[in-house]
Order: sequence, then C-alpha cells, then structure tokens
Amino acid sequence: MTDTTTEKTPVTLLGLGTMGTALARAWLTAGHPVTVWNRTPSRAAALAAEGARVARTAAEAVSANPLIVACLLDDTSVEEVLTDTTLTDKDVVNLTTTTPAQARTRAKWAHERGARYLDGGIMAVPAMIGAPESGGYVLYSGSGPLFEQHRPTLAVPAGTRYVGEDPGHAALHDVALLSAMYGMFAGAAHAFALLRKEDIDPTTFAPLLADWLSAMAPAVHRTADQLRTGDYTKGVVSTLAMQVAGTPTFLATARDQGVSPELLTPYFTLMHRRLTEATGEEDLTGVIDLLLRSEPTA
Amino acid sequence: MTDTTTEKTPVTLLGLGTMGTALARAWLTAGHPVTVWNRTPSRAAALAAEGARVARTAAEAVSANPLIVACLLDDTSVEEVLTDTTLTDKDVVNLTTTTPAQARTRAKWAHERGARYLDGGIMAVPAMIGAPESGGYVLYSGSGPLFEQHRPTLAVPAGTRYVGEDPGHAALHDVALLSAMYGMFAGAAHAFALLRKEDIDPTTFAPLLADWLSAMAPAVHRTADQLRTGDYTKGVVSTLAMQVAGTPTFLATARDQGVSPELLTPYFTLMHRRLTEATGEEDLTGVIDLLLRSEPTA
Repeated sequence: MTDTTTEKTPVTLLGLGTMGTALARAWLTAGHPVTVWNRTPSRAAALAAEGARVARTAAEAVSANPLIVACLLDDTSVEEVLTDTTLTDKDVVNLTTTTPAQARTRAKWAHERGARYLDGGIMAVPAMIGAPESGGYVLYSGSGPLFEQHRPTLAVPAGTRYVGEDPGHAALHDVALLSAMYGMFAGAAHAFALLRKEDIDPTTFAPLLADWLSAMAPAVHRTADQLRTGDYTKGVVSTLAMQVAGTPTFLATARDQGVSPELLTPYFTLMHRRLTEATGEEDLTGVIDLLLRSEPTA
Repeated sequence: MTDTTTEKTPVTLLGLGTMGTALARAWLTAGHPVTVWNRTPSRAAALAAEGARVARTAAEAVSANPLIVACLLDDTSVEEVLTDTTLTDKDVVNLTTTTPAQARTRAKWAHERGARYLDGGIMAVPAMIGAPESGGYVLYSGSGPLFEQHRPTLAVPAGTRYVGEDPGHAALHDVALLSAMYGMFAGAAHAFALLRKEDIDPTTFAPLLADWLSAMAPAVHRTADQLRTGDYTKGVVSTLAMQVAGTPTFLATARDQGVSPELLTPYFTLMHRRLTEATGEEDLTGVIDLLLRSEPTA
C-alpha cells in the first residue's frame, strides 16, 4: 500500500537571488521536488548538487510543475520572464517585491493567460527562511482557494498570513509594515545621535531603547481602535495638547547636542497642525488624517 | 526591642499634577510619611484624606523632611518654587521634565545652595506609577551615593535605572527614548494612512504591526555595536545599497494610496546621501553621522 498523501508537492522556483535560493533550499530540505531556473545559470549549481532539477529556460521550468513560485528582481522581470512561458492552468505565486498596483495588474495579466494567482510579501530576510523559530513569515493575498490548496507547501519556508482576495493587499501590508519599521529606525537614529558626543556607550543604551520601543509598540492597537470607531479621544493616555507642549524640550535637546532635528520635525509639525483644528484632548491619531489630506507627491 | 530599620523614609513632594499625585499616593500606600505642597492647594485635599500632611508653603514642605521630590511643570517652576526654601543639607530629587542642559544647571544651582541633587526622567504615565508590573521606570542621574541611599524609597513608585553621575544624563536618556518612540509613531501613522482608503480593518492590521515593530526593535543592538566599534558593515542583514534600491516601491505605494510621504522621505533622503559617500555594503548606521554633521536648527 502506497501512502500517496505524504507525497510532497513539486515546486518550480524562478529567480535564484539570495532569497530565491533560500526558498528553494527550504523546499528541497523538506523533501519537495524542486525545479529551478535563473537568468544567470551558475547560481543554480549549488542547488543542483542538493537535488534540484535545473531548467534551461523559464518555459521549461514552468512546464515542469503546476506550482510556480517567482522571486525575481522586480515586476518588470516577472513580466519578461513569464511572457514566453505557457501559464494555462498554472498556479502562480509571485513573491517578487512590487507595489500593490503592480500586484493587481500582474494578477489580471496572469488570469488572462489562464493561470491562478497569489501574491506574496516576504516579511523576513533570507537567513530567516527555513527557520520557523525566527518568526519570519510571508503575507499572501489573491485567490483564497489557491492559498488553501497550497498552504502546507507555502508554510515550509516560513509562516503564512493570508490577508484577503485583493491581490494588492499582501504588497500593501508589506510596504506598510516596512514603512513603519523605517519610521522606528529613523527615531532610533535620532536617539543614538543625541548620545553621540557624550561619554555613553551605545551598547548600554541599546537595551533600554529596544525594551522601550517594544513596550510602546502595542500602542498601535489603541490607534487602530480609534481609527475604526472614529473617536480619537478614546483611551487617550497622553493628550495631543500635552504632547505638543512637550515638543520644545525635544527640539532644544537636539540643538544642544548638535543634532539636526530633521527626522523629528515632520511629525511634530503635523501634531501642531492637528492641534490647530481639533481638540487637544485627542490622541495623536488625527495626524494620520493629515497625511491623507496633504497633496501626494512622488 | 524596636526594629528601626523598617521605618519608612519620609518624603516631601512638590507639585501635585497627575504625575505628582500618583507618586505621593504610591509612597503613602507603602507607608511612607508624605508631606505635599502644590501651588493650587485644592489638589492636595484627596491626598490629605489618605494621610498626607499638607504644607501651606513650599518652604514649610522643604523644611519638613530631608528628602525632597519635585515634580513640577518645567525647570522655571522648579527655580521659582525652590528659591524661597532652605535647601542646606537637603536631598533634592528633581523629576520635572527638562532638557539635559537645564538639569545640569539646576544641579549646580542646588549644590550652591548646600543640597545634594539627583535628576530623574519618568518613563511612565501616571497610571503606571505604583504598579510595578506595568514596566514603567524612572531614569536617574547625578550623585551616585544619593541614589544608593534613597534607592529603596525611589523604587516604591516605579522601577529605577541609574545612568551615571552627569546630572543631565537622565534627561538625555529620557528625551532620546521618547524621540525614538515618536519616530516609531510616525512610521505607524504612515502605515495606517496607507490602508485608510482600502477595505482593511485597522484592528486586524494592528497585531501584525505591533508584532513586526517588536520583532524589529532589537535591531538597535546591532546599530549600537556598529557605533561602538565604528564598523558599520558588521553583521549587516540588508545592505544600504539594497535598501536604497527599495525606496521607490515605498514612495510609489504612498503616491498610489494618496498618502503624503513627508514622514518617510527625510530618512530616505539621508539613506541616499550616505550611499553617495560610503560603501553600499554598510548598514543604515551611517545616517546617524549625517545627523551630527548637519547644521543644527531650533
């Protein structure tokens, strides 16, 4: 008696950058048959030694298996690579970093070619792939049934989070999370700069900083609840008026320490603007509305 | 036999705003004799009912006990309130929010009046005072022996972290940590703004955001190590060149979602500037040096 339920889904992987290689290796290690293709064939050598089948062309790689995972440079590369392949009845999972609009367009493009489509945003660096304990995961959006069908296979390299049918939403969540991270890094850069000319070891400050940021991160739950209900005074801990009143201390300290305030002032400016048009008893959430009312620029 | 070691140190508390009141209440609850004074006497009524002695003047409050804790509006208030008191041989703990420079000047001023001086920065909101499990704490700097002598008393309302003899360093750590927090909040504001016009419930996004920020916060340990060693290529996970290459996706997504990029662009601008003058194999740490080289403005 053969237990066919334990047969591992074969995967075709297009693109062997650091991330693509890590993904291919995770599937190989877990016993999935893997077919790989890369524009520069030499990248495939190590994986071939580990059991991957190396396709000579993207078309050959796509024809090899029903499940196609793309991890390429950008959206243009995805179109170029897939254009000369036959996508009819293929399940395309696009893990290439794109904008939400590009993901939506690519989904439509794939559907027109007879494929099912799932878009992914990787919230991990290559070292976190194949290491479930690292906490890295991949956001998915697009076809729900396609996600459910391949969930066990997709869960091999990293955790999975499905965020809805709109194929642009995985990329949107990805960009939103990374944007927030850059804000945090900007704040941390300002903090380290303030201490730079003092006799303070940055490695003794770092634990305080990491703990403080981790302790304050859950404040986003309150922000979300205020956005959902529209009541920006709900559960306020420190009011907009109080926080605006505190800004001169931050700017004076930056000046005294010889640090440009350019990473702090844009947020303070919006806090001040909001205070001129709303109640000071609010939280800082009104700043978000000002970002939407502002004239968008590229 | 009388066990005098269990007698609780009496505390004088100047300033009964929300924070001062919370501090006084924490000491009263723990059995410390507490003398309070506030410019507006009515604020003291509730504490009097709980056992606090209410002084009619700041001078009377200061003369009542050796340990004086000030939690006033700002540095000017501290000078005004203490000017007509006798500070000789007093232990002054100033928890008023000030700049590091103001704390240093106030320490000198107190020393000239015969007092010992400790400066504090409160990393908590009033609701976290007297609730050790909240994780709130107070940064202290200034006289080390004074801190050691009063550590058990100071530890009653919140945890304590002593950060050195320089009386300005508690305020500097305080401002640095809060500055970093504002950066994180700015990033979160941008993230929420990106989702605002989509059919995405912000309260389902918030857990992803809180977890992601908490997971990324420990990256500051790597930054600190790079700053300490001066080697900004040490342990790099994603290089400056790779991250700069990714910025157009963030800006295009903001534009597509109708969101002003004003909270993101200052950091991206510095990343780009650093890339023109350093190796792309670095981490983002070089941005910190650009903040110090920039012309400081108020």
